[in-house]
Amino acid sequence: MFMHHITDQLSLKLIERQDADPLYRLIDANREHLREWLGWVDGTTGPDGYRDEIIPMWLTDYANGNGFACGIYFEGELVGTIALHEINQKLRQTSIGYYLTGNGRGKGLMTTVVAFITNYCFTTLDLNRVIIECAVNNTRSRKIPERLGFQQEGILRDGEILYGAYHDIAVYAMLAKDWSGMHVSTVQNQQVN
Amino acid sequence: MFMHHITDQLSLKLIERQDADPLYRLIDANREHLREWLGWVDGTTGPDGYRDEIIPMWLTDYANGNGFACGIYFEGELVGTIALHEINQKLRQTSIGYYLTGNGRGKGLMTTVVAFITNYCFTTLDLNRVIIECAVNNTRSRKIPERLGFQQEGILRDGEILYGAYHDIAVYAMLAKDWSGMHVSTVQNQQVN
Amino acid sequence: MFMHHITDQLSLKLIERQDADPLYRLIDANREHLREWLGWVDGTTGPDGYRDEIIPMWLTDYANGNGFACGIYFEGELVGTIALHEINQKLRQTSIGYYLTGNGRGKGLMTTVVAFITNYCFTTLDLNRVIIECAVNNTRSRKIPERLGFQQEGILRDGEILYGAYHDIAVYAMLAKDWSGMHVSTVQNQQVN
Amino acid sequence: MFMHHITDQLSLKLIERQDADPLYRLIDANREHLREWLGWVDGTTGPDGYRDEIIPMWLTDYANGNGFACGIYFEGELVGTIALHEINQKLRQTSIGYYLTGNGRGKGLMTTVVAFITNYCFTTLDLNRVIIECAVNNTRSRKIPERLGFQQEGILRDGEILYGAYHDIAVYAMLAKDWSGMHVSTVQNQQVN
Amino acid sequence: MFMHHITDQLSLKLIERQDADPLYRLIDANREHLREWLGWVDGTTGPDGYRDEIIPMWLTDYANGNGFACGIYFEGELVGTIALHEINQKLRQTSIGYYLTGNGRGKGLMTTVVAFITNYCFTTLDLNRVIIECAVNNTRSRKIPERLGFQQEGILRDGEILYGAYHDIAVYAMLAKDWSGMHVSTVQNQQVN
Amino acid sequence: MFMHHITDQLSLKLIERQDADPLYRLIDANREHLREWLGWVDGTTGPDGYRDEIIPMWLTDYANGNGFACGIYFEGELVGTIALHEINQKLRQTSIGYYLTGNGRGKGLMTTVVAFITNYCFTTLDLNRVIIECAVNNTRSRKIPERLGFQQEGILRDGEILYGAYHDIAVYAMLAKDWSGMHVSTVQNQQVN
Repeated sequence: MFMHHITDQLSLKLIERQDADPLYRLIDANREHLREWLGWVDGTTGPDGYRDEIIPMWLTDYANGNGFACGIYFEGELVGTIALHEINQKLRQTSIGYYLTGNGRGKGLMTTVVAFITNYCFTTLDLNRVIIECAVNNTRSRKIPERLGFQQEGILRDGEILYGAYHDIAVYAMLAKDWSGMHVSTVQNQQVN
Repeated sequence: MFMHHITDQLSLKLIERQDADPLYRLIDANREHLREWLGWVDGTTGPDGYRDEIIPMWLTDYANGNGFACGIYFEGELVGTIALHEINQKLRQTSIGYYLTGNGRGKGLMTTVVAFITNYCFTTLDLNRVIIECAVNNTRSRKIPERLGFQQEGILRDGEILYGAYHDIAVYAMLAKDWSGMHVSTVQNQQVN
Repeated sequence: MFMHHITDQLSLKLIERQDADPLYRLIDANREHLREWLGWVDGTTGPDGYRDEIIPMWLTDYANGNGFACGIYFEGELVGTIALHEINQKLRQTSIGYYLTGNGRGKGLMTTVVAFITNYCFTTLDLNRVIIECAVNNTRSRKIPERLGFQQEGILRDGEILYGAYHDIAVYAMLAKDWSGMHVSTVQNQQVN
Repeated sequence: MFMHHITDQLSLKLIERQDADPLYRLIDANREHLREWLGWVDGTTGPDGYRDEIIPMWLTDYANGNGFACGIYFEGELVGTIALHEINQKLRQTSIGYYLTGNGRGKGLMTTVVAFITNYCFTTLDLNRVIIECAVNNTRSRKIPERLGFQQEGILRDGEILYGAYHDIAVYAMLAKDWSGMHVSTVQNQQVN
Repeated sequence: MFMHHITDQLSLKLIERQDADPLYRLIDANREHLREWLGWVDGTTGPDGYRDEIIPMWLTDYANGNGFACGIYFEGELVGTIALHEINQKLRQTSIGYYLTGNGRGKGLMTTVVAFITNYCFTTLDLNRVIIECAVNNTRSRKIPERLGFQQEGILRDGEILYGAYHDIAVYAMLAKDWSGMHVSTVQNQQVN
Repeated sequence: MFMHHITDQLSLKLIERQDADPLYRLIDANREHLREWLGWVDGTTGPDGYRDEIIPMWLTDYANGNGFACGIYFEGELVGTIALHEINQKLRQTSIGYYLTGNGRGKGLMTTVVAFITNYCFTTLDLNRVIIECAVNNTRSRKIPERLGFQQEGILRDGEILYGAYHDIAVYAMLAKDWSGMHVSTVQNQQVN
């Protein structure tokens, strides 16, 4: 039920148990290309795992102030998800994970969404550092932090495992002090509570 | 961050830790009239209790699929709260609690909000029965279920305790089968996910 | 082992694990009429569930000062049970549940037992309000609170579910201040520790 | 509330929170002689520790089928306690602890009570071995197992600590096979459920 | 990885998950004679139970300062184990359990190991009393405490159960004050941290 | 008590509660230079925190197969510590943390110790990747992975916080496949169980 409207067409919705069916259908209809970079796709065989385990886990993280997972809606249609993974309170940092599929692709939506979430991390959550980690060969995904001015800080060798094979991971980060000086998009002028 | 817009002017926001300050200020500015029917007002002496205990408890209920607590915003200003208390899965029932204050009063806002939440309980959560309990002498509060066609089912004697004194409680309830036949407001036509 | 003798013939025994067998036999021998108003009867298929789950749960409630479940014995024979369900410390209230079967019926035993337990709630546990809830059509059960002067406070529509069908529930309650003025039976003169 | 009547004059009552006051008064009035063999007496400075910690712990043991603690009542007056400590299910054994004071002493009450509890252990709980451990110099206490035919199996050196000083402990035990052949008292003919 | 070298040939190693395989092989190769006095041998049917349940439980005891289990290595080969069972902090006492097999037997190794552990209990752990319990008919095992000057304090009848049959248990103990006066072996001169 | 001897002079000891005092004394005697790169030094004001919280936490990690903390001993004297932090089972990776002080410095000890632990991670724990993270300006610490052939993979900006100020972190890693081809030291020929 609970949403945030980034633009008229683009919104985020906190994922609840009743979203298990549409979320599973999204994965199921896009297995082919999602499984390339998401290791859990093959293990996702029905909506029950979402309803009974994964969504409750996401909501518990949210209740603990330790991140959240949102559906991305374009013109009312679920086209992907974005999540904050674990908020390190000592270092005031977190990392963002996301995927987009089907009708959502090729419109620059993810750049807008990630810009919004990054801004939210600095402005509302008062964090110092936002990380995005992408497999080195996941060119599509790497373009998002690059477009938004995140700095590539290194390559963690064998930092991810997909279907039994290791992949190197590019680490991008944005610091609060750098973000405020950028003018990536209008989202930065939004004050979110 | 996560909201539901009921009308252009009226919205609900899932209460998060960062709402502790405005929520406390709302209570603090309206102690006089809120304390009449809310037993916890005198014990609310700062925002920390909200941030560290009460809001985390509400969010944990939400994560467990066991209700939630929302701020009510009118033209962007926090004017009250509404909550679902504990969802009884066996009986498919819940109860609604609410208060409105200051600038929110006298505009019929609460009737709209309760109609929306009641509709959400039947339509999205698929519940069978929605309860509203009001102290017998709380005339203002009792008008809400009465306007919306809830049926008064009884008076529970000494069913609430406020500042050491017992009060009788009027129990109102709406059943799913009765709600669908009513045309209380346009909210019933909304499909919420 | 631990009992309370209400009269020479009538006593209550705190149900322990070793009572699982006789308790199951009582249910099993009376399925026909018990299942009419007790939703759990069909699911009771052997003594193990009592021994390993239900009785330990009752005893844990008892250990937590949150109610208890007793067997009702007439002339040494187990004829039913009576329980206090969850004690609400803030409101100083509880509710009583009971059933009687076979040889125990038709002797007015349950009225005596409920009078005793009600008196115990007010006198020893110092509660303010004792509730009895009965399905509206369960005439036999409703006679108990009516005979003892409990006041019917309302009818909760669809307040119980039995075998997939909702039933309305009559709510009866006795308040401490009213009880002390009544002279229902000699049990009121007993001081129990 | 829950008792077992061993004889007309002598009964055991499962200790509940509401017994904290009389239990504390019993200890307080008999500190002098109780502290000689009970290490916790000096630390018992009011009824709250009983009500909030010790009695709940005893009741939790009882709920877990792991022993219990009873008050001993003579002619309606609390004169001591008896407890089963931890039931070892693998070895089917437990141990008994007890004390008697003031008006209860010198009447042979404890022998009757321990005979009853021992019999209960073998008959109802189906145990194989019942242990009684007494400080070597606690002559009064050692007489109980000796009168009942328990066999002294050894002396555990430094097996107890009282006020910083170690004491040797005499271990007595009764086996099920030996008990059934004895005719210690009429309690053995009682069948307790 | 973590060891203590008692002599050049004899060492103890804290048992870790990666020791599950060799530990199981040791048991499996010596089932015949081990099962005579160790009740768990027949239930040990593979290394998984060690890796997933028993070794983690031992390590958790160790983490809680409540004993430990070590492999005994002679010339680099695992030949048995020795454990401290539960440390009673109030009484400052513990008990030692051990077995040796195959190539380890007949060399006096266990006497050296038990002398070392006993000394460690008194010197490093600052305990007051160390207990060794052996089945009465386990002559080989009883020789260890007897050689080391432990005093036999009694025979606990039916104190152990093996394959459904009870066995009497001989209780041996050493007190700190007696140990320091003995000159059992050179291990007493070792200071272990 | 439990150690691993890397060379005749150099050993690791699993840190236990009884090491709290020497560990605290080591920190206390070297506060000046340790606090430069270790944020917790100022908060370490006595041995109790080690004994009651930190060491039990380390041992619990060890019991859970999730790393460990060892004291480093040179010629029998405690000169520093080394720890494995959290073992990521999915990625088969961990990270190493260490410090050396006083008499331990300037002898190349830490290079030997880290080589040993790295080898242990690959050989015994069968990990794929070992990480060492050092503050960019901590030249002394960075020399260890550099000498051992770890590859610097990046600089995480603001990846550590010390006394309220952020520091950039150099990330070094060794992969299993690279390690086996190196001949850093003789430690690689050791087989540790």
